[in-house]
Amino acid sequence: MTTGERSRDAALRERARRVVPGGMTGHLHAALLPPGYPQFFASGSGCRVVDVDGREFLDFMCAWGPNVLGYRHPEVEAAAARQQALGDCLNGPSPWMVELAERLVDTVAHADWAMFQKNGTDATTVALMIARAATGRRKVIVARRSYHGAAPWCTPVPAGTTAEDRAHRVEITYNDIDGLESAFERVSGDLAAILVTPHRHELGTEQQPVDPAFARRIRALCDRAGAALVLDEVRTGLRIDLAGSWKPLGIRPDLSAWSKAIANGHALAAVTGIDALRDAATRIFTTGSFWCGAVAMAAGVATLEIALREGLVAHLDRVGRRLREGLATQSASHGVPVRQSGPVQMPLVLFEDDPDFAKGTLFCAEALAHGAYLHPRHNMFLSLAHTEADIDRALAATDRAFAAVAARFGRAVARQEA
Amino acid sequence: MTTGERSRDAALRERARRVVPGGMTGHLHAALLPPGYPQFFASGSGCRVVDVDGREFLDFMCAWGPNVLGYRHPEVEAAAARQQALGDCLNGPSPWMVELAERLVDTVAHADWAMFQKNGTDATTVALMIARAATGRRKVIVARRSYHGAAPWCTPVPAGTTAEDRAHRVEITYNDIDGLESAFERVSGDLAAILVTPHRHELGTEQQPVDPAFARRIRALCDRAGAALVLDEVRTGLRIDLAGSWKPLGIRPDLSAWSKAIANGHALAAVTGIDALRDAATRIFTTGSFWCGAVAMAAGVATLEIALREGLVAHLDRVGRRLREGLATQSASHGVPVRQSGPVQMPLVLFEDDPDFAKGTLFCAEALAHGAYLHPRHNMFLSLAHTEADIDRALAATDRAFAAVAARFGRAVARQEA
Repeated sequence: MTTGERSRDAALRERARRVVPGGMTGHLHAALLPPGYPQFFASGSGCRVVDVDGREFLDFMCAWGPNVLGYRHPEVEAAAARQQALGDCLNGPSPWMVELAERLVDTVAHADWAMFQKNGTDATTVALMIARAATGRRKVIVARRSYHGAAPWCTPVPAGTTAEDRAHRVEITYNDIDGLESAFERVSGDLAAILVTPHRHELGTEQQPVDPAFARRIRALCDRAGAALVLDEVRTGLRIDLAGSWKPLGIRPDLSAWSKAIANGHALAAVTGIDALRDAATRIFTTGSFWCGAVAMAAGVATLEIALREGLVAHLDRVGRRLREGLATQSASHGVPVRQSGPVQMPLVLFEDDPDFAKGTLFCAEALAHGAYLHPRHNMFLSLAHTEADIDRALAATDRAFAAVAARFGRAVARQEA
Repeated sequence: MTTGERSRDAALRERARRVVPGGMTGHLHAALLPPGYPQFFASGSGCRVVDVDGREFLDFMCAWGPNVLGYRHPEVEAAAARQQALGDCLNGPSPWMVELAERLVDTVAHADWAMFQKNGTDATTVALMIARAATGRRKVIVARRSYHGAAPWCTPVPAGTTAEDRAHRVEITYNDIDGLESAFERVSGDLAAILVTPHRHELGTEQQPVDPAFARRIRALCDRAGAALVLDEVRTGLRIDLAGSWKPLGIRPDLSAWSKAIANGHALAAVTGIDALRDAATRIFTTGSFWCGAVAMAAGVATLEIALREGLVAHLDRVGRRLREGLATQSASHGVPVRQSGPVQMPLVLFEDDPDFAKGTLFCAEALAHGAYLHPRHNMFLSLAHTEADIDRALAATDRAFAAVAARFGRAVARQEA
């Protein structure tokens, strides 16, 4: 534990405890992280973050997703600053809204149109409203434990919600085709949408690719019922395929929800959809004071441009693969078995025989002490700013971390030999 | 109608029609405004906005509320730019979160703590979740037609929502104490909250001050039931009283929802609350990718500082009063009776005998043609950037607009003599 009594982080936590419930709220609460992790940050640049005590870390979270080009990408920031010097929140949108909608329509395979919000939760909620308005039906099939946001209808914690908030959720298990079929049979007459993440990426659980047969079945059932297939791309967007994460499968969603990375850290969300749902999208009323903010949209246009020009996905794949292979080698050499899962662009490292994440916690705490900011239970995120040299530097930290896990928990010789 | 075929605005609308449902969504849709109003904006500065065709307007909307210090207030923008140069969306909050929470606790009379979001709707939703978590109850009493956001539980348009989204809303009429009492009797055993705006400010309806007896009754009923009094300050915040809009009445809310003006146009929302609700606020789980963004919080601290230092509310009152008096004089001299309502900081001008807003529409279209951007049905907003000279310039435009209304609809001689 490095944040001693007199660190700035500790002092800020003490002040925060008085004026913020629990000292912090939401997914960035440091209490959810191993000891030694800072709560408060001073700055970020490229693939590095600096905490308020001046400690610099090689970052593998991208602020839980948004900074896919790296913190403060110069070209994005220049575009944002140019618009900020003119105005942000005005009496209507700027031309950037049209520009960005056009770029999304050009880039995202299924998209005939786009509309904009601020939070990922806004985007999933708006998509569901559009599906309900279009169909006049109520039910939404979702995978149990899939994260679709933190509004009452979808937050993973029931406190403060009512049964009615979730009355029309029909839960299935991700990739379970029989379960999907039987849920569909129960509610098909009232089915508005099937809402699904492109792959399974739940907190603390191995990521799973989507079974293509499951994805195809979702598409077929939506077609049969006239329901909307809503793809939740909030976390995956711009990382798997710029045309949409199910493009490689050849499966077209009717609506997609985007946020996090689409403006490289500037607050923005979007829903893209097909022509058949355009009318329904005009009939719902959702809005927000800042949804037309010009700066985030200028940043979004720059982000898409850079992503296309620089081959973002291929880069993430390359550095992600290097990280995965390096970790696999270290895992074997230290005799500390891990399960690496998910697309290499969104790595998750879980330890074998680690039900309480004690190994993962020690591993991350040690890696942090050696300069790499990892997460023990949530998938991590690579960025365009990560170079192969950065990956190698991070691997130097994880090598020490594996050694610490081996020293504390022993080498898993039997398992290695099995 | 000044946006001809070849204007930039018309060209952007044409492009937008292809890639955005309805060409635009939400409350900034120009279709909701009189002819001649631009849809797209290039810039804003002080109390002026410039559309994409280079037309400059004296603005009385502040982007529907946010820019309470004027567009691009230099000190706010400098604070934002300094933080933007360090980083915005990081792996945790910056020290600005603590600083801003402390300032809110110091400034807002009832506040023992604060937590932050992005949209006004986030703030009202989070407040309701806290009330439900604290009480273990479900019902919320709201005034019919009061706007509390655009999520399924509160959007004014039912398309895309389900009956269950609104199952626990109990609607009363604003300022109707008997109706409040009888609603309370029906649901008191299950009452989580009474959610109310500081005064009545519904679209297209005269604003009404809160009846102090109504406000006191709400407080008393919440106390009796152990329910939370939630004040929706999203629109009023920083305009009526920096300590909270019911501070002058001596009535303390348990929770307040803030957004719009609190960071002078930077996307931010907040909930403030009392100690007794602190624990409940830690038990709900709501969050957003950008909720800890450091830039908006730095802007928020600067905004509060300037508001206190410059006597923001007194300024808004002074220029608002000048506008109201000027309009009253013009109304009388042109023989065109109007009803002006609301706090002078948030003016609303409705015309007598104008059920379809034809007079209001002509009035605003004419004022716009002479350089003043008004709204015929929504309350308007003054800012710190409005000088007395700006008000006088706007009054020159409204004088022409009154003349146009008198010319088209005639002088209301009878009414004037009555």
